[in-house]
Amino acid sequence: MKEAPVASPIERLLTATEAEMAKVNALILSRAHSHVDMVPELARYLIESGGKRLRPMLTVAAAMLFAKGTGTAINFAAAVEFMHNATLLHDDVVDESDMRRGKPAARMVWGNKASILVGDFLLGQAFMMMVETGDIASLGVLSAASAVMAEGEVFQLSKTGDLTTTPADYAEVIRAKTAVLFQAACEVGAMSGGADEAGRQALARYGLELGNAFQLVDDVLDYGGQAGTLGKNTGDDLREGKMTLPIILALSEGSEAERATIAAALGKMDATDAQVAEVVAILEAHKTLTRTMEQAHAHARSAQQALEVLPPSEMRTLLNDVVEFSVLRAY
Amino acid sequence: MKEAPVASPIERLLTATEAEMAKVNALILSRAHSHVDMVPELARYLIESGGKRLRPMLTVAAAMLFAKGTGTAINFAAAVEFMHNATLLHDDVVDESDMRRGKPAARMVWGNKASILVGDFLLGQAFMMMVETGDIASLGVLSAASAVMAEGEVFQLSKTGDLTTTPADYAEVIRAKTAVLFQAACEVGAMSGGADEAGRQALARYGLELGNAFQLVDDVLDYGGQAGTLGKNTGDDLREGKMTLPIILALSEGSEAERATIAAALGKMDATDAQVAEVVAILEAHKTLTRTMEQAHAHARSAQQALEVLPPSEMRTLLNDVVEFSVLRAY
Repeated sequence: MKEAPVASPIERLLTATEAEMAKVNALILSRAHSHVDMVPELARYLIESGGKRLRPMLTVAAAMLFAKGTGTAINFAAAVEFMHNATLLHDDVVDESDMRRGKPAARMVWGNKASILVGDFLLGQAFMMMVETGDIASLGVLSAASAVMAEGEVFQLSKTGDLTTTPADYAEVIRAKTAVLFQAACEVGAMSGGADEAGRQALARYGLELGNAFQLVDDVLDYGGQAGTLGKNTGDDLREGKMTLPIILALSEGSEAERATIAAALGKMDATDAQVAEVVAILEAHKTLTRTMEQAHAHARSAQQALEVLPPSEMRTLLNDVVEFSVLRAY
Repeated sequence: MKEAPVASPIERLLTATEAEMAKVNALILSRAHSHVDMVPELARYLIESGGKRLRPMLTVAAAMLFAKGTGTAINFAAAVEFMHNATLLHDDVVDESDMRRGKPAARMVWGNKASILVGDFLLGQAFMMMVETGDIASLGVLSAASAVMAEGEVFQLSKTGDLTTTPADYAEVIRAKTAVLFQAACEVGAMSGGADEAGRQALARYGLELGNAFQLVDDVLDYGGQAGTLGKNTGDDLREGKMTLPIILALSEGSEAERATIAAALGKMDATDAQVAEVVAILEAHKTLTRTMEQAHAHARSAQQALEVLPPSEMRTLLNDVVEFSVLRAY
């Protein structure tokens, strides 16, 4: 008899939420519908392009931790995914990105204009799904998240290529643009499941810290991961002038020559691969990729600690273990 | 003793809603705030640029028709104005407009990226203000409006420069992109004021028909008004390829030569003023500006009829009279 391969935490979470996520996915597809053909064409191109649906899965999983289960969480999970996809459509226009999830970005197929407007449509549909639950408290959590996310994107934009950006600025950017939606996804899941105040706060903190870890890892991956392995998209953030922690730390600790090398490539869409490689070498010399990963680990541990107030359960173990997934991506 | 000049209906509505609109304006200013400087700078540039605030004024006025008055209507009025301004920011990016309300468009000052993101922020803030009322039914009306508006913009985009666009397509575009927000503004005002079902429906119809009239007039004004008086911005819609009723009717009734003249200028940003003048002459030959105005009048009358189910009051008279304002702009 062959031994079954050990399932990763993310695979186990996928299995544990499979039946509920089938409902979420059906709702997502039905609400991407419109009599205006371009809307579902563009929306489905993005939504069906193999994203992990981590955020709605967290909403469902958070609800399953508590007694009431996943009734209204299905709507909130679909709404969270729509909000996320609306953000991706607008971000790709703002960042002038050509690719998304390994395919040409929607804006390369349907144009910037349609991407902006379909993003607005998805946001409107997200709020309609929330309204249908009648749960005004959860609506408050997600509408606040929506405003904060946009604010975070503007803050990031205002800091583009700004050599004086501090680690505190960066922490604020990643909290607002990424972690707050993870937080809201988990918090409204807990609320749907009937969590008490302590449970709600635990899941909110879990989501926030997981989101922070997730974005820190993303920003390390953009420079090839902790090993600095150069690949096709290595240096996108550098070329776009995004002030992420590996760059911020290197600028504050590097020599004049190193600062000049970074500044020469930062925000230059036509920076060469050789320039990117030089910058990555500087990040490695100052261990800023490793140190950014250490911060990701600290947030990941904090996410896991947040779960400790909850009674032990299979789902609690899964949510604890899946935190690793967010960090191990970088190796 | 000098006789006071007769106030126009819009001036009388402004006076009648002045105290309540002061609260709406204070709320608008406080909610355009953000610790990210670019957000209030851009938002206030647009919001304070002398728009008439017709939509929030309708919300307030609709509430004042009914017994409960304007309690939650203040929040909904501010939210409606934020939704409208978010739409303007995104529309100006989509239409590549240089000017808005007689000033350079926000995107010309802060760029397309900031305009997209601050639009998203205003939408998030709008929903937060709605959530604070705890009124889930009104939230449903406005979130549905938000999705339909975006859908209408996509539909308009998909019909850009499409010579086969029908009057029915056009009716759907203006309903979705313009009239639905007027409808929602009036409907949630009535709901806030404590209207019964008949009152709510009356105000919804009033807003919808007023909005339809308003957009028809806008589309006539874009060709210089009913008199076809050529001005600085005459022909913007033509150059952007927008399929508005005056053009649709002329294409369906014109000669081959006239169709060719229109097609040669439609959607061409570099169409000359002489080309625009030629097209306007064709619209006049087929009386399509006048006939579009006749449709505007029909919608205006329908808006006024909608009010007839309500008991007579000073505010009912004002709302009846202000409909004229939306139509008289074109002369």
